[in-house]
Amino acid sequence: MSGYQGKKNIPRITSDRLLIKGAKIVNDDQSFLADIYMEDGVIKQIGDNLIVPGGVKIIEAHGRMVMPGGIDVHTRFQMPDRGMVAADDFYQGTRAALAGGTTMIIDHVVPEPGASLVAAFKQWREWADSKSCCDYSLHVDITDWNKGTQEEMEALVKDHGVNSFLVYLAYKDVFQLSDSQIYEVFSVIRDLGAIAQVHAENGDIIAEEQRRILELGITGPEGHVLSRPEEVEAEAVNRSVTIANQTNCPLYITKVMSKSAADVIALARKRGAVVYGEPISASLGTDGTHYWSKNWAKAAAFVTSPPLSPDPTTPDYLNSLLSCGDLQVTGSAHCTFQTSQRAIGKDNFTLIPEGTNGTEERMSIIWDKCVVTGKMDENQFVAVTSTNAAKTFNLFPRKGRIAVGSDADLVLWDPDITKIISAKSHNAAVEYNIFEGTEVRGGPVVVISQGKIVLEEGSLHTMEGCGRYISRKPFSDHVYKRIKARSRGYLGEQKVNRIYHVEVVYII
Amino acid sequence: MSGYQGKKNIPRITSDRLLIKGAKIVNDDQSFLADIYMEDGVIKQIGDNLIVPGGVKIIEAHGRMVMPGGIDVHTRFQMPDRGMVAADDFYQGTRAALAGGTTMIIDHVVPEPGASLVAAFKQWREWADSKSCCDYSLHVDITDWNKGTQEEMEALVKDHGVNSFLVYLAYKDVFQLSDSQIYEVFSVIRDLGAIAQVHAENGDIIAEEQRRILELGITGPEGHVLSRPEEVEAEAVNRSVTIANQTNCPLYITKVMSKSAADVIALARKRGAVVYGEPISASLGTDGTHYWSKNWAKAAAFVTSPPLSPDPTTPDYLNSLLSCGDLQVTGSAHCTFQTSQRAIGKDNFTLIPEGTNGTEERMSIIWDKCVVTGKMDENQFVAVTSTNAAKTFNLFPRKGRIAVGSDADLVLWDPDITKIISAKSHNAAVEYNIFEGTEVRGGPVVVISQGKIVLEEGSLHTMEGCGRYISRKPFSDHVYKRIKARSRGYLGEQKVNRIYHVEVVYII
Amino acid sequence: MSGYQGKKNIPRITSDRLLIKGAKIVNDDQSFLADIYMEDGVIKQIGDNLIVPGGVKIIEAHGRMVMPGGIDVHTRFQMPDRGMVAADDFYQGTRAALAGGTTMIIDHVVPEPGASLVAAFKQWREWADSKSCCDYSLHVDITDWNKGTQEEMEALVKDHGVNSFLVYLAYKDVFQLSDSQIYEVFSVIRDLGAIAQVHAENGDIIAEEQRRILELGITGPEGHVLSRPEEVEAEAVNRSVTIANQTNCPLYITKVMSKSAADVIALARKRGAVVYGEPISASLGTDGTHYWSKNWAKAAAFVTSPPLSPDPTTPDYLNSLLSCGDLQVTGSAHCTFQTSQRAIGKDNFTLIPEGTNGTEERMSIIWDKCVVTGKMDENQFVAVTSTNAAKTFNLFPRKGRIAVGSDADLVLWDPDITKIISAKSHNAAVEYNIFEGTEVRGGPVVVISQGKIVLEEGSLHTMEGCGRYISRKPFSDHVYKRIKARSRGYLGEQKVNRIYHVEVVYII
Amino acid sequence: MSGYQGKKNIPRITSDRLLIKGAKIVNDDQSFLADIYMEDGVIKQIGDNLIVPGGVKIIEAHGRMVMPGGIDVHTRFQMPDRGMVAADDFYQGTRAALAGGTTMIIDHVVPEPGASLVAAFKQWREWADSKSCCDYSLHVDITDWNKGTQEEMEALVKDHGVNSFLVYLAYKDVFQLSDSQIYEVFSVIRDLGAIAQVHAENGDIIAEEQRRILELGITGPEGHVLSRPEEVEAEAVNRSVTIANQTNCPLYITKVMSKSAADVIALARKRGAVVYGEPISASLGTDGTHYWSKNWAKAAAFVTSPPLSPDPTTPDYLNSLLSCGDLQVTGSAHCTFQTSQRAIGKDNFTLIPEGTNGTEERMSIIWDKCVVTGKMDENQFVAVTSTNAAKTFNLFPRKGRIAVGSDADLVLWDPDITKIISAKSHNAAVEYNIFEGTEVRGGPVVVISQGKIVLEEGSLHTMEGCGRYISRKPFSDHVYKRIKARSRGYLGEQKVNRIYHVEVVYII
Repeated sequence: MSGYQGKKNIPRITSDRLLIKGAKIVNDDQSFLADIYMEDGVIKQIGDNLIVPGGVKIIEAHGRMVMPGGIDVHTRFQMPDRGMVAADDFYQGTRAALAGGTTMIIDHVVPEPGASLVAAFKQWREWADSKSCCDYSLHVDITDWNKGTQEEMEALVKDHGVNSFLVYLAYKDVFQLSDSQIYEVFSVIRDLGAIAQVHAENGDIIAEEQRRILELGITGPEGHVLSRPEEVEAEAVNRSVTIANQTNCPLYITKVMSKSAADVIALARKRGAVVYGEPISASLGTDGTHYWSKNWAKAAAFVTSPPLSPDPTTPDYLNSLLSCGDLQVTGSAHCTFQTSQRAIGKDNFTLIPEGTNGTEERMSIIWDKCVVTGKMDENQFVAVTSTNAAKTFNLFPRKGRIAVGSDADLVLWDPDITKIISAKSHNAAVEYNIFEGTEVRGGPVVVISQGKIVLEEGSLHTMEGCGRYISRKPFSDHVYKRIKARSRGYLGEQKVNRIYHVEVVYII
Repeated sequence: MSGYQGKKNIPRITSDRLLIKGAKIVNDDQSFLADIYMEDGVIKQIGDNLIVPGGVKIIEAHGRMVMPGGIDVHTRFQMPDRGMVAADDFYQGTRAALAGGTTMIIDHVVPEPGASLVAAFKQWREWADSKSCCDYSLHVDITDWNKGTQEEMEALVKDHGVNSFLVYLAYKDVFQLSDSQIYEVFSVIRDLGAIAQVHAENGDIIAEEQRRILELGITGPEGHVLSRPEEVEAEAVNRSVTIANQTNCPLYITKVMSKSAADVIALARKRGAVVYGEPISASLGTDGTHYWSKNWAKAAAFVTSPPLSPDPTTPDYLNSLLSCGDLQVTGSAHCTFQTSQRAIGKDNFTLIPEGTNGTEERMSIIWDKCVVTGKMDENQFVAVTSTNAAKTFNLFPRKGRIAVGSDADLVLWDPDITKIISAKSHNAAVEYNIFEGTEVRGGPVVVISQGKIVLEEGSLHTMEGCGRYISRKPFSDHVYKRIKARSRGYLGEQKVNRIYHVEVVYII
Repeated sequence: MSGYQGKKNIPRITSDRLLIKGAKIVNDDQSFLADIYMEDGVIKQIGDNLIVPGGVKIIEAHGRMVMPGGIDVHTRFQMPDRGMVAADDFYQGTRAALAGGTTMIIDHVVPEPGASLVAAFKQWREWADSKSCCDYSLHVDITDWNKGTQEEMEALVKDHGVNSFLVYLAYKDVFQLSDSQIYEVFSVIRDLGAIAQVHAENGDIIAEEQRRILELGITGPEGHVLSRPEEVEAEAVNRSVTIANQTNCPLYITKVMSKSAADVIALARKRGAVVYGEPISASLGTDGTHYWSKNWAKAAAFVTSPPLSPDPTTPDYLNSLLSCGDLQVTGSAHCTFQTSQRAIGKDNFTLIPEGTNGTEERMSIIWDKCVVTGKMDENQFVAVTSTNAAKTFNLFPRKGRIAVGSDADLVLWDPDITKIISAKSHNAAVEYNIFEGTEVRGGPVVVISQGKIVLEEGSLHTMEGCGRYISRKPFSDHVYKRIKARSRGYLGEQKVNRIYHVEVVYII
Repeated sequence: MSGYQGKKNIPRITSDRLLIKGAKIVNDDQSFLADIYMEDGVIKQIGDNLIVPGGVKIIEAHGRMVMPGGIDVHTRFQMPDRGMVAADDFYQGTRAALAGGTTMIIDHVVPEPGASLVAAFKQWREWADSKSCCDYSLHVDITDWNKGTQEEMEALVKDHGVNSFLVYLAYKDVFQLSDSQIYEVFSVIRDLGAIAQVHAENGDIIAEEQRRILELGITGPEGHVLSRPEEVEAEAVNRSVTIANQTNCPLYITKVMSKSAADVIALARKRGAVVYGEPISASLGTDGTHYWSKNWAKAAAFVTSPPLSPDPTTPDYLNSLLSCGDLQVTGSAHCTFQTSQRAIGKDNFTLIPEGTNGTEERMSIIWDKCVVTGKMDENQFVAVTSTNAAKTFNLFPRKGRIAVGSDADLVLWDPDITKIISAKSHNAAVEYNIFEGTEVRGGPVVVISQGKIVLEEGSLHTMEGCGRYISRKPFSDHVYKRIKARSRGYLGEQKVNRIYHVEVVYII
């Protein structure tokens, strides 16, 4: 479906010929028993008694589940932030992802406000091409709205395989756009057939609250969450939905962190909005009570925006909404900083670099919280960890499905494995893990990326730089069929009236 | 997947060898261009440049949509009712279904209270086997709860391919069961791996209101809806959900007729209940204002229970909830009576035999109300008209999907066709059509059932009795994976506590 | 307004002449500074520089709050239960009430099913007249629906000053009525101008769950809450609302114990239902996690129905709804049993006699949870602890207001007092207190009942049997003005149609 | 309570001595029969058999309802708008108000952005003092946020009796403030003890939509509502609530026009926000379908912002929410322009001056829609038309109650009067009436303002300029008791944590 661009200088791995026998293939729509044969990184055959060439490596699945590799829709590996760079780069980050069963990531390009989007995009490609151990793609963040922005967005869509752009309602005087600008960006995105992503928090309120909290003498990490209360997130989600509806632009909320924010998305969907919500490993697996930890390093490790909610019932709630379909896609927003980096904000929480780990833990956390509890079944699990992302970002069925012709990105999943998450054993470079000590059930036993075994018997066999950039075409079917139908005639309840009533002639 | 039982005395049709070229295959998960080759009623190949034997009939699709034939999950053909029989029998009913793009129906067996369920089932099979023009299956209604009922339910599941049973909360002193009985029936259904269907209305209140309304001198069809207000339906849905949650039994609400009832289902799903809702042609396509028609025959033709809501915004609301996934499956509840039959209730609305038409109109109504308006796309359309039903009732992927190995039940759909529904042109036997005069966009151009063209160029080519009984296995994956996970440990939020806390030892 | 019936054999107390100087009078509608002069148990003057006779006892309020004495709308003092009698009788119970600032209680008469309502009422009067230390009134529970019931209800309303009757949706085979019976009782209640009270739990489900839980080997107090999950309460509330709407009967839910139940009431009110909700001391002040206490006596002390919710966020939620007006009235449902009495259920939780303490603690708990936190102000506090009850049950403005002509039932309230609740210091007879150890801010300093100081400097000065029976007239203005308007023409959204459409003549 | 400032040059009317005999006095808390005696514009006695001086004019009420005169919280008489002035000035406007039973209005001062607030206030006083026929007060709109604004607000509160300020989220580049500015204004308002009023619409979106709609060639009045869809109003309400919660500032939404906006307010209140909603005559009595009238003059007469909703079920919904307490206060937003004035926007809807009539119709519309239908009773009617306004804006009990010492502003109300609203018979100067042809039940028979009969037997007897400016003190008890409690310790759920956790000492 989507093509990919070759890379010259990176050593190509010789794809193994692999046969998985006796797999319970778990797609998002059904599970069934069959063998899978892969060659050159692509699934060539699925069925019983397959005829395969000699010299094939065979994995006996013994009826265990084999599912499409996870897609982590939100990473920020080696992200620059005020002179620092995130602790996990594309090598360490994608290794951690693979270790957790994720075989593709989509990272965010963050251009300096005012700088060229295309140049930033190329910079990120360079970083990722040289280090990524699994396939990847790139969202581009719109950190500024100026004359050239629209043209560059067009170039990114047409020439560089980008079909998603993120805007910020927060980070006043840095990345934040006004409602008028958002309206215009959304209009452009819709015309390009891309997807509008939103970092949803009200930056104006946050700036005021930060000042107030600091004035109260609160300088620690708890100040971070105190200055960004849950309703400030929900407000921005609601505003984004309103603007997206007006512009008939598909909307995607990154990092759904609170019950209120999730509720706004659920309600909007019920009313017919084309909107998607992305809870992340952190919001699904832990909560914001840790901001008050007496251990500053620990508290600081949780600093991310929107913040984790101090309401400890949040993860269960978000997992429920993910299970019933009100939320659809999951990422990790993996963006880590060492304590020594965070320490720059020791006396002022607003200076702490933001982000949490989660690319390695994402799939096990969701399995543990949702499947073990009976909230969702194995097929829904595949949907929220892989297929929905592939459909939304137009990677399907190359990614997100086990089918003939699809990429050989697979996971052999053991529902009975249990593991205690710890920084001591995790594969990320960061020294702190926000899920430290959490026991999760369910995890990958074998991971296959590009038709090659990268995880087996607990060992990672990855090759730096073998990850390919996967370009994504605009006008994703999954997203745009409804958008197009609406623009043809139906534009929301109220807009029907427009069309109808416009023909009415009035006289003075 | 599911087997089917052979029929001896029915002439088998010789399946055509059919090739559809240039189809845009529309499944619930994606659309793609390919050819389809069918033989012996089964899809044998899908792809480009297929190699097929000679003598094959070819249909040129020219890129038009080909989708799985519809499944009408709720019909009541030739249903006996107080000495009368519904006007459309299995021949006329299934012909009408096929004319509208539906290639399988699931009818309801309604045993006389106290009579044998198995005997009734066999009676229905006899009727259907001899007349049905398309594949069919049977739900069995539990109209009485006595000593032998459980055993008979077991026999139906194990020996007769039944995996769904309906109970009535209405029809006091006839079919209605008490809450205690419902609790017990649901417990049995869960143990059998079947699905609990519920006719949801509070029969006690209705009986009182009927008496009151008649005492007020109101005897016409409007009395029907006056005595069954919307909240009486919603109340019963809510009660069913409560009992189903307690018993960990999957629940399926037939005939969702009102906004309030749909809201209860949506909320329950959000809270994690395994519950499905079935709006019908009538509730999606028209409303209950017609009960006050001055034309008695017309008003009487709308009499069905739960009644159509007099709130005219209901259809749009139900179509929205169907589109966002809060409702999942659609049927017609096709059960028609001629005016001469209805006339028995001329002076007393409680005597009017109940039911409306809709098996022929179902798919076009949903296309027109949901797809044309951009509420859903073509894939979601396939989901709600066919695939979800197949998954829920364990017919998938034999039914509900275009895939190699699936039954050759297909529809070539034209989104641009427009049609005005009328009793003059419909294929049902009943003389009145509740959608009379409604213009709908979208309809079938070619319908293929059991690999044979049954609709082409506007003409039906059906064979009485060629429809096969499709048996359905219990423990449908789609439904029971979550149920099983819950019974293992997780039993809803509250029940987690049970498990946990039961281990606590207390002392006096 | 409402008269009261004299009592022959009880020694009448000579009312003091009392003057409160410098009071901040706090009514439900406003606060203002004034003096209050009382004589013969009635407020005679309010204002500045009052002219009063000599020999008057003077209380200097120094600007502190003086408010109407609390009305505890729900007590069950010395209630008989399967051969036992509740530990607090009318003497101990009303003493405890007065100690907490409550100057009137309304107790429940519980006739044996099948026995005469009037006889039971007289029995309760006898008990109360001889022991009660404050004014009281009586609700009558309808524990059976037979031929004579309606007539007796009529007699109670017309001759005995009863305007409220409670029905049970729980206690299968004991008190529980069917939906049909409820419908009929509500119709009678509406015709009599009384208020329908409901104990809302689904008794059928509970009976099944009790059996199931016992079969699982769970016999301790946690079995009580496990067999009565929150949704079983909410279901019954919803059903009651539905029947009340159909019969146009005002509805009053006693003992709102869970978030779900409260939500149903709030939603019904938004839709226009005339429905009131009564959270109690226990549900506002503590939660159901204690059912798993290792101390059996403690766990058993919390047994009441509907049970306290194990969700610890419940009290805060109910206090919020009480503050925003979604809930209106508060009681204690004070009904206590000693551990030795509870012990009859030592091996079977279904045998534990039910009920919790709370008549003494009610006002301080609400002040602490609602006023101190800024959820409500002092005037709303008076509304939910006194005035709303007086209005609903037609005692206003004799009770529930500080005004000339009103009864001299007053409380001098200190918002700054703090107190730790304990069985060691409480005034009830029961040996366990479910709020043990809870610190509350706000409490009465002086309590005046019938114009006499009954609490002063921490000492109670009560007189056994001085409490008067207060009869209540039907057709309370506060409740019935809307009911009457509706029966005139408007009967809910749907019923408007009835009226309108009934006039339509239809023809065959 | 609140004082008022004398006026030198206006001829004072000699107050009549008036006695109303046999009145059913209807306050917001109860109804009761009594006589009322007034002198010097103040109620002097209430009771039976009053002793009054000779020469008293007597009105025999014969048990009919006498209630506090209405307070119209929102008028914009003779408002300047881009060179024009609203058609109804303070004389015609207050005459119309009195004719409908309203005896006090609160008008809005609209300073030119950048101009002095105090100067504008004085200008308005001058206009009103010379023309107003009833008592009035003034809100001041903050149309700009600059250095001097805070100081002027302080002066208005301290020296001029203003306790409410309105900010605009709409009217981009004219009145609109940014979220940061709103945050600051709200902080100032809270410190001053005033109330923050908000015109809630998202001006950024509207500006974009106006441009888009005009580009589509839509220039007529329907363009007005097309460019201001309902969700744009709801969005702004939600944003205001969020900022008000952060700043702990009481919030008042003027002109609640849509179901969505009302829902946001209702939900916020449930969550504990101190927020009030003001639906107006127009939104309670008619809808926005008229924007498509073929009669341009008619369509243009409905142009107001936020616009009337095209959803015709809106008025019933808003009346329901007003009845259940989710909305509290009603105004008219009376601001009228003649067709010749509106015509300036003949070719461009954005130029049409905005506003609708409604000060005369308000009370009858509410009686008809709410009381006749049984949604509310007569006491709630008084609450929403008068008392709640008086309490919120600190005029109580001088206004909004019939009590000794209160102003003699009264209405003798006949619930059975019916009237067809028409521009032909209305008392406003404007030539079009948006309620033209609407039949309403209930209306004033006698209106008394400042103790003088101003309406009797259908005739108005008003005196230009006799209306007094009523100054309003800050820190209204009704509003600020909760605000103060919150600022003491409790600051919303989340902020509790702040207080608690701030004390935690953390270490690196």
